[in-house]
Amino acid sequence: MSPENRILVVGSVALDSIRTPYGQAVDALGGSASYFSFSASHFAPVAVCAVVGEDFPKEHRLRLEDRGVDLSGLETAPGRTFRWRGEYMAELAHAHTLETQLNVFADFHPKLDAKHRRAPYVFLANIDPELQLEVLDQVRRPRLVLSDTMNYWIARKPDRVFEVLRRVDVALLNEEEARALAGETHLARAADKLLAEGANAVIIKKGEHGALYQSREERFITPAYPVLALTDPTGAGDSFAGGFLGLLARSGRGDGEALRQAMAAGTAMASLAIESFSPARLIETDAAEIEGRVKALHGMVHYDLFPIFGS
Amino acid sequence: MSPENRILVVGSVALDSIRTPYGQAVDALGGSASYFSFSASHFAPVAVCAVVGEDFPKEHRLRLEDRGVDLSGLETAPGRTFRWRGEYMAELAHAHTLETQLNVFADFHPKLDAKHRRAPYVFLANIDPELQLEVLDQVRRPRLVLSDTMNYWIARKPDRVFEVLRRVDVALLNEEEARALAGETHLARAADKLLAEGANAVIIKKGEHGALYQSREERFITPAYPVLALTDPTGAGDSFAGGFLGLLARSGRGDGEALRQAMAAGTAMASLAIESFSPARLIETDAAEIEGRVKALHGMVHYDLFPIFGS
Repeated sequence: MSPENRILVVGSVALDSIRTPYGQAVDALGGSASYFSFSASHFAPVAVCAVVGEDFPKEHRLRLEDRGVDLSGLETAPGRTFRWRGEYMAELAHAHTLETQLNVFADFHPKLDAKHRRAPYVFLANIDPELQLEVLDQVRRPRLVLSDTMNYWIARKPDRVFEVLRRVDVALLNEEEARALAGETHLARAADKLLAEGANAVIIKKGEHGALYQSREERFITPAYPVLALTDPTGAGDSFAGGFLGLLARSGRGDGEALRQAMAAGTAMASLAIESFSPARLIETDAAEIEGRVKALHGMVHYDLFPIFGS
Repeated sequence: MSPENRILVVGSVALDSIRTPYGQAVDALGGSASYFSFSASHFAPVAVCAVVGEDFPKEHRLRLEDRGVDLSGLETAPGRTFRWRGEYMAELAHAHTLETQLNVFADFHPKLDAKHRRAPYVFLANIDPELQLEVLDQVRRPRLVLSDTMNYWIARKPDRVFEVLRRVDVALLNEEEARALAGETHLARAADKLLAEGANAVIIKKGEHGALYQSREERFITPAYPVLALTDPTGAGDSFAGGFLGLLARSGRGDGEALRQAMAAGTAMASLAIESFSPARLIETDAAEIEGRVKALHGMVHYDLFPIFGS
């Protein structure tokens, strides 16, 4: 593939132990950079900048490499890999974190090599906004930078989170994060406020209610893909990011039509992610299935307007 | 206008006293049939079947008649008009009922005259499902019947609510009502279950998250119109019903494209209803404003698909 559509992700590669009403997984391959990479790799070549410990299983590394993911920026540091343990209750709406072991992630500072600095598409996954800013200082004129964050950083470093928002092209937030960062419960007003504070564009993820894209020029809404076999919501947001940025990288477009279809591609990838434990479905899916879900989403919103009050 | 697009609504005409963080109203014109009528009357002629007490103010009657609403089926019974007193907290998500006085509504039984029995479009607003069934026994081959209900009836008379669902063309429910009636928290599964139980089509209203239409043939989602001047959510659902049924009656169509645009028309009318106390905005709006909101909603979801993986 052309180097013009390369995507760089800076985030976490982790070992997740997850329990949901439908089963559990122990030390499964997880982390924002992993989910993002499996998702985006269906669209364009992906390189990871992250850190793992000496205990990181070789088979996990192979699963990423099998999808063509460039792991030259995946550092191995002395110590143990970042671990997260969580569970979901009956509604699967929120993860309850039982344990977070930062391990080697505690001292991580992303160092991009020359090739990665020139990646035209960049995803700053949910890490300390200080680290996201370090990445922004290293990259050279990317075409599009997408960022993510979480309530933890919004509560502790709101100024830094805002600084990232102003420097990236599109910022991903979930509903609660958007409300917390804007200090505004009404979602349409929260989006307006984030733009007024200097964000260029925001995507607000609303889980089963879909997602909203808002910039000064565009307001666009996509429904969620109706997943009946919901199994494990972990990684839905990063998989969304992978489909969104992946479609833009693959098409090379950044116009309104492409942004809208990118929202559908993100939604399709998130729907696949949550149908299995760990990224299993994301790995085994293919172009036909992804294109099928994007078309189904389009079919759920598309219609031709006719005049209502014309004589 | 042609008698072919006449709409009959059977529901409540009430005096509402409402407090929200933005102000209050005392003994304002309210009730499901009032909101529905103001909304639908922008699209097609509406007749009301309801009951009020001897204290019902003449100016409220005139406001309905000024919109061309046929009040020949609005019975005046000895006693006081149905009254509702409620308040909304900061998020405006749920009404807290402070007092309900059924008054003359307690003994209401809808009696349709010959003209009303032949109405081609019928809205069974939120009343006792036994009364809704009485109306269904009286009407003569309507083209389309839309029903509404509420948790109160779902908890007390679920079998009767299901009987109505099976006999109408489209049933309106909000999110909690759909979950409660289906006994299923996952919304896509709840909609499937209601269809499996015999509903022909359901519309699930999700407030600021928009609305879902689902039948065996169609699944369609419309976002909410982003209202920044949210003032009083009372009547949003009945105003939605008025726009939905109004558009279908006006266009005379029942195909998928019309159903989709009817969802947008319903959404536009709901957005107007909640911008003022009582139905003030619904009354003063006009064709240009309604058509403008429908177009804006269409613009928020519309895009042309391009192939993602085509070579």
